[in-house]
Amino acid sequence: MRLPFTLLIDPVPADSLQHDFADTFHEMDSSAPALRVGELSTQRGDGIFETLAVVNGHPQEVEPHISRLRNSARICELPVPNAEQWRAAIAYAVSRIPQRGEIALKFVLSRGVEHGPAPTAWLHAAAAADFSAVRADGVRVITLDRGYPRGVAEKAPWLLMGAKTLSYAVNMAAIREAHRRGADDTIFLTTDGFVMEGPTSSVVLRIAGEYVTPAPSGAILHGTTQQSMFDYLRAQGASVDYRDVTVDELRRADAVWLVSSVRLAVSVVALDGSDFPADQALTDALNTYLLARTA
Amino acid sequence: MRLPFTLLIDPVPADSLQHDFADTFHEMDSSAPALRVGELSTQRGDGIFETLAVVNGHPQEVEPHISRLRNSARICELPVPNAEQWRAAIAYAVSRIPQRGEIALKFVLSRGVEHGPAPTAWLHAAAAADFSAVRADGVRVITLDRGYPRGVAEKAPWLLMGAKTLSYAVNMAAIREAHRRGADDTIFLTTDGFVMEGPTSSVVLRIAGEYVTPAPSGAILHGTTQQSMFDYLRAQGASVDYRDVTVDELRRADAVWLVSSVRLAVSVVALDGSDFPADQALTDALNTYLLARTA
Repeated sequence: MRLPFTLLIDPVPADSLQHDFADTFHEMDSSAPALRVGELSTQRGDGIFETLAVVNGHPQEVEPHISRLRNSARICELPVPNAEQWRAAIAYAVSRIPQRGEIALKFVLSRGVEHGPAPTAWLHAAAAADFSAVRADGVRVITLDRGYPRGVAEKAPWLLMGAKTLSYAVNMAAIREAHRRGADDTIFLTTDGFVMEGPTSSVVLRIAGEYVTPAPSGAILHGTTQQSMFDYLRAQGASVDYRDVTVDELRRADAVWLVSSVRLAVSVVALDGSDFPADQALTDALNTYLLARTA
Repeated sequence: MRLPFTLLIDPVPADSLQHDFADTFHEMDSSAPALRVGELSTQRGDGIFETLAVVNGHPQEVEPHISRLRNSARICELPVPNAEQWRAAIAYAVSRIPQRGEIALKFVLSRGVEHGPAPTAWLHAAAAADFSAVRADGVRVITLDRGYPRGVAEKAPWLLMGAKTLSYAVNMAAIREAHRRGADDTIFLTTDGFVMEGPTSSVVLRIAGEYVTPAPSGAILHGTTQQSMFDYLRAQGASVDYRDVTVDELRRADAVWLVSSVRLAVSVVALDGSDFPADQALTDALNTYLLARTA
């Protein structure tokens, strides 16, 4: 029942008939070395990952995360993960970590050791950072050019947009750039002025009363928490839509949220240095809903 | 005197007055785990690297590689590496590996363990692949859109172009795309049709008798072996130039080479499925020169 918690996983093929995976998991001391320097995850950022929240012992959005991991694997030509094995690994991890509080559970599939026989995989759980302040007060956001024109992902699938790869150096640099400009986070734009996503979040806007997120495409990850937010909004009778969103629409939106699995929903309260309207009551209601889910 | 060889390094600050670094190196079994799963190199591809060749006991282009590592660190806001320590680490490694044959020596600086106190660093030496066939016969190359317009790196430094980061998933995907199309390697183009570089190499063209490479810029790594090639060509009395090169110039070039530290110079013998003229005599002379360097 300690954190951090680390589980090494021997991946089995997607079509394996195996149903008991216990002997494919190896719990280990998180402070001990686990990976060889020849790992392509570390040499080349060549692997994929997901991070889900475990709230009071309940792992959230397990199926959407596993589904997205499998989709990332297809884009990256990695062996498609066995969903049943990952479900079992997550369940095992959840049984071994504290049953109270918020925990970030990351799971990784790497191409493995260079010239090695097989991919490697692991799962790592750590106490989530305390996001109570940003959930209550919102985040100051800057827009940054992601460098790509809209539609590039469809024309150039080797850019791996739409896959959640370990090659996140640009995402991390974008957050440092936000800090340098006195902000907290970033919204990426295409070079031709369309809203994409945050480095580690989805963007949801309220425009003329309707909730909108940029259409998931080759270039934009389909946010698992954004989908939960839309479920909540639909249940409230609100109108939701996936469509292209221009930077002008972003600047004129009624309200904007960054949404992600562990930080959950945060209001954008400043955009490129100017105050921005927020609907904090909805943010609060949404996070109450997201934290209370038990599946 | 065995390969692979792994050396863990405790990085000292660039301005350290230390001159004896022996106690900052820790040789270890390459098959043993060395890195924690919390490593940002593996979680986020958040680190930088260089790979140099050791030929018959001589490490090649040590200073250009260390210099480029330091430049990558500045772009990525990592602590700037202590050049003297890296020189000492490379020299130590070279003293511990076979003195015959070609060896690839990779050195890495990672942002370290998440929320950890310091970056981590290591060096890894392994026998080079046997490149005699591609050096003699050349490579079939396809052009691929890198998705970025020319000049984006200057406008968007958070894209980390010009830094040699561990986030290489796209580079690896581009090589897989080449293989899928029956080719060996890739030349990246900007969306507006300028030649950039290969996923793991520089591009050198001969155009109307002059040797040209795309100007190193925010978007293009300054190739260490390309610089050695230009040294050789200048010594032969040839004219060399750094400038913008369009894809039309690429298609009409007299000859094209991909140049990198370990594979060295290889002739492009096919471009996008069509045969391409090669100057194999120059390739051979160049590789003889590159392999014979003793500094």
